[in-house]
Amino acid sequence: MSDVLVERDGAFTTITMNRPRRRNALSREFLLALAEAFREAGASDARGIVLAANGPVFSAGHDFADMAGASHADARSLLRTCTDLMRTIQTVPQVVVARVHALATAAGCQLVASCDLAVAAESAGFAAPGGKGGWFCHTPMVPVARNVGRKRAVEMALTGDVVDARTAAEWGLINYAVPDEELDKATIGLLERATRGSARSKALGKQALYAQLDRPEQDAYTYAVEVMAASSQTPEAQEGMAAFLEKRTPDWPA
Amino acid sequence: MSDVLVERDGAFTTITMNRPRRRNALSREFLLALAEAFREAGASDARGIVLAANGPVFSAGHDFADMAGASHADARSLLRTCTDLMRTIQTVPQVVVARVHALATAAGCQLVASCDLAVAAESAGFAAPGGKGGWFCHTPMVPVARNVGRKRAVEMALTGDVVDARTAAEWGLINYAVPDEELDKATIGLLERATRGSARSKALGKQALYAQLDRPEQDAYTYAVEVMAASSQTPEAQEGMAAFLEKRTPDWPA
Amino acid sequence: MSDVLVERDGAFTTITMNRPRRRNALSREFLLALAEAFREAGASDARGIVLAANGPVFSAGHDFADMAGASHADARSLLRTCTDLMRTIQTVPQVVVARVHALATAAGCQLVASCDLAVAAESAGFAAPGGKGGWFCHTPMVPVARNVGRKRAVEMALTGDVVDARTAAEWGLINYAVPDEELDKATIGLLERATRGSARSKALGKQALYAQLDRPEQDAYTYAVEVMAASSQTPEAQEGMAAFLEKRTPDWPA
Repeated sequence: MSDVLVERDGAFTTITMNRPRRRNALSREFLLALAEAFREAGASDARGIVLAANGPVFSAGHDFADMAGASHADARSLLRTCTDLMRTIQTVPQVVVARVHALATAAGCQLVASCDLAVAAESAGFAAPGGKGGWFCHTPMVPVARNVGRKRAVEMALTGDVVDARTAAEWGLINYAVPDEELDKATIGLLERATRGSARSKALGKQALYAQLDRPEQDAYTYAVEVMAASSQTPEAQEGMAAFLEKRTPDWPA
Repeated sequence: MSDVLVERDGAFTTITMNRPRRRNALSREFLLALAEAFREAGASDARGIVLAANGPVFSAGHDFADMAGASHADARSLLRTCTDLMRTIQTVPQVVVARVHALATAAGCQLVASCDLAVAAESAGFAAPGGKGGWFCHTPMVPVARNVGRKRAVEMALTGDVVDARTAAEWGLINYAVPDEELDKATIGLLERATRGSARSKALGKQALYAQLDRPEQDAYTYAVEVMAASSQTPEAQEGMAAFLEKRTPDWPA
Repeated sequence: MSDVLVERDGAFTTITMNRPRRRNALSREFLLALAEAFREAGASDARGIVLAANGPVFSAGHDFADMAGASHADARSLLRTCTDLMRTIQTVPQVVVARVHALATAAGCQLVASCDLAVAAESAGFAAPGGKGGWFCHTPMVPVARNVGRKRAVEMALTGDVVDARTAAEWGLINYAVPDEELDKATIGLLERATRGSARSKALGKQALYAQLDRPEQDAYTYAVEVMAASSQTPEAQEGMAAFLEKRTPDWPA
């Protein structure tokens, strides 16, 4: 059985982390395989991607068996590989939703924070445990802190404690916490809602949203005005407006 | 009847969008008229401004009748006109509160996000529907994403679904969601609370707050220290401190 | 009795503001004494610092008796001294938690926003009252706005009204609001949770977290990857990983 399972079902591709005995720890090979799976799904005509996991843990983050004794150069290389995966998730044209059925810690929590959207089972949890160990969760806190408020980010980073799914939803780390038995339905339901409309327009939208998100507001406007003006000329924008005015269902260009 | 109604009542000016049959869609002429109304109110001695709307919709955003078939140059020009309105709202010296009685979508939602404060009826709603169409809500997401958390911004942008008023208040897109029949009272009550004290001090405060808000913290301090030190020398700052120490009601200089 | 009480109890140092008759107003001498207390505790082997206060008010902010009639140069110097205290709190290697038993206003509210963590009694409150006076709370709003959402920051800044502790916790200005009689237990409990693990790793973590927090995400990653790679080579990181793999309790190097 492969460590990374890829399954296409209709418009959606599900990428499943399948190293349950290693708690889906993110070894170098596993990170590369995940990034490759995202790039392939990204190049396909799928409209949405689910990131899921098998086993008792969603992902425990980096594999200490890899890291203990690693040189500075090796550690740096591994962290860059890990960051590349996070960036790939944000740069594929599809909507990516994390389906979190269990505990997500350290770089596993970073994965959830890096997906466009996230739905978790109520029994799931989230933590940056480096804060109570010897190696602080520096890189995981980059996207985590951009999803939750500052005092909550500091609390997660310094305590390393597990935040339950309901609290994670209140803090904005995930979109929804749902009863465990409804996880699949809620994940697919959110992905269906998030993938309506022109896929090409949405792909540009996702990319532009991340580009403007953490810039000063006036810089963000300068950028967003140009993107929105240019995209008004696309066939999908014209079709969307024409269909609206003619009160008919739009027929998105391929 | 004019498309933009301006009414002065005591210390407050109400600017009402009055194109109900066009769902208060933001055509070029309408945007220019709104910006002119804000500039005039901004130059007046009013202490606060309410942005309200007539009809079944608060504002549906851009008018597709204008946009369909528009050239790149025309689209760009329209979006710059729209952004100028948003900036004008932030730069007038008065406190601006949105009174949202109904659905606010796309650039209509952007208007609410751009006001200093916002109160909505519980039956109101908020959406960036470009995400499920062919023309993504790039510019509306600039201020929307600066009011709500990242995962919520992505959800609004990608799904295009309506967020109800209670949820919008929990997410921080608006300040309060109130029963429909209490909307006027709650809007004016918040504006009264937000317009006490020296108007001149508050005008500087509003401007400086937006200037520091999305800068790195140390840059923000460098700026805020200078503004606060300089403003300590103003007659209103001295009067405020003197009145406090003398336990009397301050008499703000004109 | 000194204006600043410093007490070491086990691993934690408590710094108590003790100018109850002046409502713990932040005069120049008091700011300098507090900064000195933080620097001394920062240089000690304490693992955590509690910022507490005596009297009916946590802190009322700047002392208008000092400020009324102060020259521009004196006002500027005082605000820089105040900003230095806020920065010192963020730069000491220890975890700093505010124990807020009562009202914290203006620079007093800024103090709470500047601590790493904060716990408040339910009867406490938070305000930036300059907004309803003659001298706007420019510098207090720098950290306050980085803890709460934008609409909430604007509301606090413009109204000057008191936000109760429960609301402050919902908005993320503090971590927890607890019944008054549980304040000590909750403060120490949070500090204990936040000070487990290697103190040296955590000190680097705290510093790096603030450094990356308000940068664009890709800049933050560039920085965080280097810090995390370098810190993988420290004895504490190696000990943490070895202990995990060997299923034993880590023994942190001094």
